[in-house]
Amino acid sequence: MKTLAEAFHHTLKDIYFAENALVKALPNVAKAAGSAELKSAVEDHLAETKEQVKLLKQVFESIGEKAEGERCDAIEGLIKETDGIIKEASGAALDAALTGAAQAVEHYEIARYGTLREWAKQLGHNEAHDLLSQILDQEKAANAKLTTLAVTHLNMAA
Amino acid sequence: MKTLAEAFHHTLKDIYFAENALVKALPNVAKAAGSAELKSAVEDHLAETKEQVKLLKQVFESIGEKAEGERCDAIEGLIKETDGIIKEASGAALDAALTGAAQAVEHYEIARYGTLREWAKQLGHNEAHDLLSQILDQEKAANAKLTTLAVTHLNMAA
Repeated sequence: MKTLAEAFHHTLKDIYFAENALVKALPNVAKAAGSAELKSAVEDHLAETKEQVKLLKQVFESIGEKAEGERCDAIEGLIKETDGIIKEASGAALDAALTGAAQAVEHYEIARYGTLREWAKQLGHNEAHDLLSQILDQEKAANAKLTTLAVTHLNMAA
Repeated sequence: MKTLAEAFHHTLKDIYFAENALVKALPNVAKAAGSAELKSAVEDHLAETKEQVKLLKQVFESIGEKAEGERCDAIEGLIKETDGIIKEASGAALDAALTGAAQAVEHYEIARYGTLREWAKQLGHNEAHDLLSQILDQEKAANAKLTTLAVTHLNMAA
């Protein structure tokens, strides 16, 4: 990996792997969630994540590359953390910890799409830039929704 | 882990482990950085991270607990990703990818401190709330600095 174009392609494969990993992981999170609100928020985000996989395929296409993933240690660590919560938490701790873990995932994605979007701009990949901006906005909205849920849920529990 | 107080204590141990892991990992990142600006930003953040470890000790103390870490899969994944970049990247890709990875770490921390701060508030841990807010502000500032660096560096390289 020597050029910015190579870094862009590599990181795109990372996040493509990450979104596909989330498509597999999120049903377990929805199943584990205690409150109907969190369950529904996770299910909505699962549907959105499936759409993001399609948008990422368009990004690959727009730069003349084949859509493929590359193992991403960061998302594997984040998902492992969530699995740990599902195994170890119950009661009031469960939804609070699951919501917190989901926000950590969103923030990871916000960081990666922010970087990818900036690189796309620098590389003159206009279509990729617009698609990545669209996904970035969705991740930010998903995170904001989780913040509201976290605060509301805590206030209800208190 | 059943109560919010337990979730708070568990997540505090996670982030304490994470900050200590970063104190060990950041010198390698500073060493690998190509530009003087990135090297200096990482070194500054290393000094700040050491201070944050001390602030976290105060948080533990404020809730009557002993400062101790608990293995955190997420930060291990994020650091593994950074190690991969140091091994595989060179040239223009190196600093761009390192900066991006550092921002992913910052975002992870922003998510965790945001959650911890909210929980501290709900639990009536006022001193912990203030200390966690202080660290959160530092992480946000560190991320903003990296964004500026990423954009400036890319513009210079372009």
